[in-house]
Formats: sequence, C-alpha cells, structure tokens
Amino acid sequence: MIKHTFTPTQYFSTLGERPPVLTVADGDTIVTKTLDAAGFDENRNRLATGGNPMTGPFYVEGAEPGDVLAVRLDRLRPNRRYGWTGTQLAPNVMDPADVLLLTPMASFAESRGEWDVDSEAGTAVLTSPKNKLGRLPIPIRPMVGCFGVAPGGGQAISTATSSTNGGNMDYKGFVEGVTVFFPVAVPGALFFLGDGHAVQGCGEICGTGIEISFDVEFTLSVVKGKTIQWPRAETATHILAAGNARPLDQALQHATSEMARWLQEDYALSVTEAHTLMGQCVEYEIANVFDPAYTVVCKMDKALLARVLSL
Amino acid sequence: MIKHTFTPTQYFSTLGERPPVLTVADGDTIVTKTLDAAGFDENRNRLATGGNPMTGPFYVEGAEPGDVLAVRLDRLRPNRRYGWTGTQLAPNVMDPADVLLLTPMASFAESRGEWDVDSEAGTAVLTSPKNKLGRLPIPIRPMVGCFGVAPGGGQAISTATSSTNGGNMDYKGFVEGVTVFFPVAVPGALFFLGDGHAVQGCGEICGTGIEISFDVEFTLSVVKGKTIQWPRAETATHILAAGNARPLDQALQHATSEMARWLQEDYALSVTEAHTLMGQCVEYEIANVFDPAYTVVCKMDKALLARVLSL
Amino acid sequence: MIKHTFTPTQYFSTLGERPPVLTVADGDTIVTKTLDAAGFDENRNRLATGGNPMTGPFYVEGAEPGDVLAVRLDRLRPNRRYGWTGTQLAPNVMDPADVLLLTPMASFAESRGEWDVDSEAGTAVLTSPKNKLGRLPIPIRPMVGCFGVAPGGGQAISTATSSTNGGNMDYKGFVEGVTVFFPVAVPGALFFLGDGHAVQGCGEICGTGIEISFDVEFTLSVVKGKTIQWPRAETATHILAAGNARPLDQALQHATSEMARWLQEDYALSVTEAHTLMGQCVEYEIANVFDPAYTVVCKMDKALLARVLSL
Amino acid sequence: MIKHTFTPTQYFSTLGERPPVLTVADGDTIVTKTLDAAGFDENRNRLATGGNPMTGPFYVEGAEPGDVLAVRLDRLRPNRRYGWTGTQLAPNVMDPADVLLLTPMASFAESRGEWDVDSEAGTAVLTSPKNKLGRLPIPIRPMVGCFGVAPGGGQAISTATSSTNGGNMDYKGFVEGVTVFFPVAVPGALFFLGDGHAVQGCGEICGTGIEISFDVEFTLSVVKGKTIQWPRAETATHILAAGNARPLDQALQHATSEMARWLQEDYALSVTEAHTLMGQCVEYEIANVFDPAYTVVCKMDKALLARVLSL
Repeated sequence: MIKHTFTPTQYFSTLGERPPVLTVADGDTIVTKTLDAAGFDENRNRLATGGNPMTGPFYVEGAEPGDVLAVRLDRLRPNRRYGWTGTQLAPNVMDPADVLLLTPMASFAESRGEWDVDSEAGTAVLTSPKNKLGRLPIPIRPMVGCFGVAPGGGQAISTATSSTNGGNMDYKGFVEGVTVFFPVAVPGALFFLGDGHAVQGCGEICGTGIEISFDVEFTLSVVKGKTIQWPRAETATHILAAGNARPLDQALQHATSEMARWLQEDYALSVTEAHTLMGQCVEYEIANVFDPAYTVVCKMDKALLARVLSL
Repeated sequence: MIKHTFTPTQYFSTLGERPPVLTVADGDTIVTKTLDAAGFDENRNRLATGGNPMTGPFYVEGAEPGDVLAVRLDRLRPNRRYGWTGTQLAPNVMDPADVLLLTPMASFAESRGEWDVDSEAGTAVLTSPKNKLGRLPIPIRPMVGCFGVAPGGGQAISTATSSTNGGNMDYKGFVEGVTVFFPVAVPGALFFLGDGHAVQGCGEICGTGIEISFDVEFTLSVVKGKTIQWPRAETATHILAAGNARPLDQALQHATSEMARWLQEDYALSVTEAHTLMGQCVEYEIANVFDPAYTVVCKMDKALLARVLSL
Repeated sequence: MIKHTFTPTQYFSTLGERPPVLTVADGDTIVTKTLDAAGFDENRNRLATGGNPMTGPFYVEGAEPGDVLAVRLDRLRPNRRYGWTGTQLAPNVMDPADVLLLTPMASFAESRGEWDVDSEAGTAVLTSPKNKLGRLPIPIRPMVGCFGVAPGGGQAISTATSSTNGGNMDYKGFVEGVTVFFPVAVPGALFFLGDGHAVQGCGEICGTGIEISFDVEFTLSVVKGKTIQWPRAETATHILAAGNARPLDQALQHATSEMARWLQEDYALSVTEAHTLMGQCVEYEIANVFDPAYTVVCKMDKALLARVLSL
Repeated sequence: MIKHTFTPTQYFSTLGERPPVLTVADGDTIVTKTLDAAGFDENRNRLATGGNPMTGPFYVEGAEPGDVLAVRLDRLRPNRRYGWTGTQLAPNVMDPADVLLLTPMASFAESRGEWDVDSEAGTAVLTSPKNKLGRLPIPIRPMVGCFGVAPGGGQAISTATSSTNGGNMDYKGFVEGVTVFFPVAVPGALFFLGDGHAVQGCGEICGTGIEISFDVEFTLSVVKGKTIQWPRAETATHILAAGNARPLDQALQHATSEMARWLQEDYALSVTEAHTLMGQCVEYEIANVFDPAYTVVCKMDKALLARVLSL
C-alpha cells in the first residue's frame, strides 16, 4: 500500500463526475489538506468561494458501480487556531412562534462567532462576540462534515446537502479512527472530502460546527460484490447507518431500513430476529437538522453483535 | 415527609381531571404498583382493559396551575418475570417501499414476543417465538413509559399519546433516580403513571419496550412560581427537555426551544450565549417515534453547566 | 321528523362525554346558535371563555359505537355584522428564515383584523387596521370550523384540534348543503358544533377565518352497521374524506386511505381499480395547516363515480 | 420572433450546464418533441434509458443569472395513443399500517396500467389490466411533468426531483396556455422539458400520470431585472407559486412565502395587506406527493387581484 501526499490546487462544491485529481490503488492512503466551509486554508487565505469546497476527487482503481468504498479516517487534525461558528439557533430548529421573538440578524458575518482552537489542549474558546463564554473552554472532537463519492446518473449534488452517496451529513461521530462505507456509483468511486469541524453538537443546530481547515489522512479500500443503499460506518464501539433526507422521520426510515438489511446480511439474523433485536437495543443520533437533507444515524452496539455472531 | 403505600383498585387510560385516588403533601413519597401496557398485573391477571392503564391520579397539596410538579423516580422494579414485545418494526419507521416486502402479520397477538425477565441478573431473554435470540440475554434498564399530570382546559388525553403535560413519552432515559418536572395545569397537579418497560431501545420502534408490571416508589414535590412549557428532567449527568409532537422535526423544535429558555432562566445565559453553547454542545435522543406524538429529548451536560454557573 | 329549536346556555371547549343538552330522534333537525371562536354571541356579549366554545352535545337516539352519524348542514348564517381575523401569516406556514424578518406582534389583539360582514350582499370588508383592503369587498362563504362527535375511551379532546371524531378541521368546504359523516364512538354520538367563519382561505393560514357567530340548522341521522375511520362528506359535486394529523403528509395518508376504502366498499371497485382511478382523478384540498392537527381533504367527483356505479 | 423546429437527438436525465442543443433569441418559439418518462417516442421506440429524459437544453440569448425566464406553453399534445401508468397507490401516500395489507407487486412492469389515449375525443381508457375501468373513458388534460432551467453552482439535478429551478414538479395545472417563470441561474438559462402526461390526478399518487410522448410548442422570453426564488406561473384565472421540498409542510412554506413576496412586489400590498388577503382568499394545490421533492402550489385569483390593483 502506498501513502500519497497530495496538495490540492482546485476545489469543488458539488459531488459529481469530475476528472480525478489523483488516482490511487485499492488500499492506498492519502495525506492531504482541506479548506474550511467558506474556502479558507490554514493561513486564512481564501482559496475557493463556494460553500464546503471539497478536496478531490480521488479515483480508486478497481472500484465499480455496485461495489462499496471503505474510507478509514486515519487522521483529522485542525491545522490552524482560528475557527468560526453561527451564534443563533437556526430558525427551523426552534418553535416557529419563538422565531418571531428573535432579533433579526443584520447578517451572518456580523453575528459570526470566532473561536481560538487549541488542538494540543483539546479545547476551543469563544473570542468574539465578547461574552461570558469567552471564559469557558469547551472540549474539541475533530470531525469531517462533508465527504462522499460521486452519485450516479450524471448528477452533481451540491456540498450543501447529502444523499445516498454521502455528502454534507455533518455527523459529529465521523471522527478519527472511524471507517465509513459508501455505495460506489461510478467507476473509480471518485471520493471527495472537506468541511472539517473542530467540534459540533448534535444536529448542527446553529448551522455550523467550529469551522476550520484540516490536515487529513485517510485510506481508501474497495469492497467488491457488496451492495449498500446508504452510507454505513464502523466505530470502536458501534456499527451505524446514516439516512439522509427531510424530514427527520424520513431520514430515520432510511437509516432504520439500512440497519435492518445489514443485520440480516452480515449477522445471519432473520427478519423477525433483526427487528426484535433492534426494537430493544437500537440507538439513534440526530446528526444534522440544518442542511437541505437532514441526517439520522441508526446504531447497534458491536459487543452485542459479537455475541449475536456466536449464537 | 410521609411515605404512603397505596394499592390501586382502578386505572385510567386518559390523563384528565379525575377524582384523586390519594391526596398527599408536598414532598411525600408514594409506594405503589403499575400494570403493564395491556392491563395485566404481577400475577398476570388482567385488571384493566384500556391501553396503558394508569395508577393514580395523586393530588399534591399546594400544587396550582402555573407551578411545576417535580417527580423523583425513587424505585422502578419489574415485579414479575414475564414481559412481552412486538417483533416487527413499526411500518412508520421503515422505508415505505420496504413495508410492501413484509409479510402481513395475522395479528399482533400472534406475533408477540415473550421474554423471561430476570431482574436479579439484570437481563431478559426471548422465549417466544423460538429463534436464536433465545440464547442472547440482553441487559435490562427499567423505565416508565407513560406518566404525567392532568392537562388543563377540561381535556382528557389518551395514554396512547403525549403532550405538554407528559404522558406516553416512552423515553428509555426515564429510569430510577431521575427527577422529572411537569407543568401543573390543574389544582393538585393530578399525577398518573404506568406502562413500565424492563428495557426499550431508542424510538420504541417495534411499538413496545419489554412490557411488564412494576413496583414503584416516587416522591412528589411542588416548585412554586416556576413556569415551564414542556416536561423537563434531571439525571445524574444531564438536564433535559422533552418535546412531544409529530413529526420528529416539531418534537425537536419544542425540546430545543424549551432548553434554550431553561439555559437563559436558570444558567444566566443571554440568548446569544445560550444558542452558541447549544450549537456546539447539545445532545438529542429520539425517545419514541411510534406513538401518535413522537418524543425528542434535548440534553445538556451538567458538568459543563456547572462550569457555566461559575463563570 | 321533528325540528327542535334549542337555545344554548353552556358551551364546551372539548369534545367528550358530557351530559347531553338535548336528546333527539334519528332524523331530527335542530335549530340553534353558535358563538364565535372567542366566545362572543350575536350581540358581541362574551358567553364563554375557552377557545372554540361548542354548542351541544346533542344525543341522537339509536346511535351506537360502530355506527355513523350523518350531519346535514341545512343552514349556516352569520347572525351579526362584526367578524375578526388574524392579519399575519402563521409562523409555521412561512419559510423559517422569513419569519425572522417579520415584526413581532405586540399581541394578537393588537393586530386583529376587524371586518364588516354583509350577509345580504354576500361580502366582507376590512374595517381595521385601516389600509387599502378597506376598499376591497371579498365574497363570503359561511362554513363551520369545528364540529364533530365525542371520541371514545374517555377522551375529551380540545376544540383547538381534531382527530378521527372530527373537531377543529377548519375546512372551507364545510358549507351549507353539505352532509358530513362521523364515526360514532359513544352511545348517542354526542354531536357538538361551533366556530363559524363567514369565509376562510385554504389552510387557515392567518390562524382564523372571519370569525363570527352563527344561526345554524342541521339534521342528525344514524347510519347503522357502517364503520368509517375518518370523517367523510358529500357535497353537491364530490365525495370527500378528511384526514386530521401532523404533518400534512400524514393527514394526506389518512384521507387517501379512507377514500380508497370508500371506493372499494361503496363503489364496487377492486383495490387495483380504486387505486388506478384515484391516481388519475383524485383531488386534494389543504383544509387547515394551522391547528395542532392539520387537515387534508381527499375528493372524488360524483359525476365520475356515478358512471363507475353503472359499469 | 422566430419559430424554430427542433428535432432532438440526445436527451438528459439531469438539469445542469450541458452544451445547448439550440440557441434562440429572447421571445423565440420552439416546436419540438418529448419522449415519455421511460424514454419512448411517438413510435414506441426507446431513444433514451434514464428516467424522465429531457429535450434540450435551449440557450436563450440575453438570459443572465438574476433574470427570470418566462416559458409560455403554447401547445402540449400527445403524439401517440399508447399511455401507461402505475396501478397501485405509492406506499408513502397511504397509512403505513395499510401498506402492510397490500399484495407486494412482483414488479412495476407487471403491474403497469396501459391506456388508449384518444386525443381527438379527449379521453383515455384503461386497456390493461383488464378490469371494469376498461369501460370508463376518463377526460384527458395534457400537462408537462418535468421542465425547468439549469441550477447554479455546478449542480446537475436529477429529473426525478425538483428544486428552485423547477424540474419534476408533476403539477397537473401546467397545461397548454400557461406561462411559467423560472429563476435564471446560468447564462442562457438552459431550458429543458419532457415527461408529458395525458392527464394526472392531484399528487401523482400512483407514481405517474398517463405517461406519453408529446408534440410541444413553447415560447421563451427573458424578464430582465426581476428576481424570484421559486417557480411562478400565470394561468387564465390565477397566479401561482410552486414550492418544491419534502415534506409537504416545507413545500407549502416555500410556495406561501413566494406568493407573499409576489403580492408585495407586484400588487403594491404591504406585509399586513398581503397576509390578510391571503388568509381569507388563498388556494393551494398538492401537485405531487411522490417525487423526492414534493410540490405544493399556492394560488391567488386574478380577478380579485385585478381589483386589488385598482384600489
């Protein structure tokens, strides 16, 4: 396996069939950088203008439609100290009548929160606006907001949103060490990533995590002859499926159906066994409730499933 | 403070202004029993026919509309070994097209899962239908599915559903040791509870937890001069607000708005501070996505909030 | 058949099992009055304080659970000239981001629209606030916003909302001449009505129609041995089913399923025939998108169905 | 103004920035053909494989981002007698529990409805499957299901769905004589159309109209210096705005907000006047409740608005 060091020179705000910036072999690792959601790099120079500009796409040899691309997130590290956020709850996550009580913001820029991110200490502190949160270091947990593969059928999907191919899922659990699985829709899979967050709450309810540029390292592997319908992942403790849609009800339906299929395919459970087990043991996370497609994650505990495999 | 031992002789399947079965003082504790969701007691005798029959209502002296009733769940213990569940995912939590692929169930009774609940061992094992789950003890975590106070305006709300007054929230986090706060809408608050589950996954996606009868003990206290709009609670680690509505988006809006109010009222945060902090630190749980009103829980970490109070 | 003239002396803001104010025979007609949504009568005296206070309940001899109550709306006439409305779109019907741009209203009372309703001319004109609409007579079409029967299971459902038993459906098509069918859940059916509107747009998107008191006349008949799940109705031109739920998607599901059942039961269509015909010929109306339960109406053309019956 | 006759040789299943197949001047008319939703032409030869293959894109000289493209639908005529439909309600428009009762379809192809479309008589008759609907001619009303302009930002949006740029709105009101307005996002606007239906019910609830190939004629005009956010249209009797999103609630929010803006911009109404008038006079149609984005249409009566303009 080769470790490629790649320096991006262009960025895309859609996931689609673009000419690849690098071709790698199945199992190779890539070391590269990502811009923040507004296109700024580690030196706070603006290198791209669209929202969530992506590094990539990376073409993986041997990946064909109907396969799965496994992406192991080996390293996700903020590469500067400056991060920014929204400071007001998104109108769609509040009671509509309460939105009427809010002061209209002159502009998002004016209301932007600015943060000092100390990766060594593992904390972030609000520096602007000046208020008492400036004395409250909060723990960081770097995660990647937007990543995925090219969708099929000639589509080019905005990095504002997400779909079966991944994209802007803004799930706080996509951290270092996690392996994520995407359904391959085009030859080479065409993998993109960007939109790093130093940390983010559930739901991305202020419209952002702490937005920041990253040094990243990840490994791309092809799983042949396996078909999935929605992104899946494996963490130290759980397997999970991500459903991307509006409203939350539908995102949950996609994630739940994907998990039920997974348990039947890979854990030798019948429909009744899979459903019964999920009924008493399933967990959900609300990944984002801000983007055009919301994301719900359906999780099962790996320790429990290890026991299932030994039945 | 007095500890009352109360033996119920009637049960209600609505939360409303019924004559109280017991009047207690502010701060008193009640030791009593609850039936399972289908009305069966510890000896598997059917004592009530409606869904989720409630023990109560208990009248708390001094509770007036506009106050808050604090309910500390001191003890929640299954009092028999037999529990039952659904064994099929509810149609509304699956992709609609996948529902078409399911075998129609002859009846819920026929497809019922039966469980042996061993409270000492802290596990439950499926005994019917016979399948490999019969060899997989799963950990139990007893919780109360339906509890709350009488709503106002002459309403009597079915225990199938929930609203601002609580009710059938089916949240797996309502376990022993938690204190739950309800807005008082009628004199005496009129507290009801029932519908114990030995354990339940997030969302109650098979339509049930492991349904079982309980021995319960709880303490009722009045918080004067405090107004809340939705149920709130405090656990060992978190404060939380529960929003009850359909769809999930609206349940989340209620819970989020309630938490934002709480942080401003009790943690001395401005609107901007509360929103900014929630943006990066909030957590959600999907309590139920099965009942007529879904329930979303919005949580904040108490350790973090302790530091907020010291700013 | 007897025509009863009834003068109400009490009003209810829930639909539930109250002692009847009048018992009538199957097929009898009742002539009575209704208050406006805020409890004011024809002389603008306030006779009730709750929202949507109802006249009734009327007990219909012979009506049993499992039957249907047919309500023919013989006469719906505003009995005063003063009507009132909201003047701002409800926050839940606008883009959430647009709500941020609205001026918060000091209070609903302050922003109330007042109208001069001329029933003879068949028009209404805005008299307050003073603006150019004061020179634009709009046509009226009197309709009843809230009516229905007592639900079962001991429930008492607020007249703010609606359910399988009817209630606050706020459908502009419930006008004079229409016959509405409700599923009977308790002996005598217990029929209530109120909340007259001189006119209302689709969706009740400002939160009100032109709210006004009514002189009403209606005829109550029992249909034995017929079971329906949601309110149905017959107009001069259509049959229709009303689904009441949130979100609109679910209200539409209820209405659509009810219509599919109706076509199979009463028009001798197979599942495939009913579905195929609905696919190309169905019509929907969004009755209300403001109340706690929204209402969607699913309609089929009676002329078309007459031809179906002759196939 | 020139009338161009254009014979398509390629078709696209995304709306995006493709090289134009024809460049026309502002105000020109185009006479061309469209395939049916499955790619079949007037002779039932399959010329394209993707769903909803589009004729176009047409580049309109002078159209720039920020302008509006007006599309007058001059002529929409089925050019063959064979049409096809679904014959089962889509699972997402039925009560989830009712979906469990349906017979799973072996395949859509097997359950396809086939129709004889007689454009001269103005009727369609089901020819397969054989059932009593084969004796029930239903009136046709040809409409275009999918049309719109290229979206911005490098996106290529599937013709399965719709967005601010139009697309697969499946609104039965987009018939001959209607003028539709789209926000221009790229130079030349890049207009596409296809997916003709001989007729369709509200909501496209069986997943199709009567799908058929068309002879079409339309006129493309640029409206400079006018910005709209969602598709708008003008019919003989109404102006209307189309909101495209899931769930229906959000589609309705977009359409309602767009109509409120329109009334303020072009009819000299204040916020309060626009909202008050909409409250009592607005109409909605559920265009489609099947595609990935649903479509709700918000309408106002032109006769009423003519009187508004004269106030």
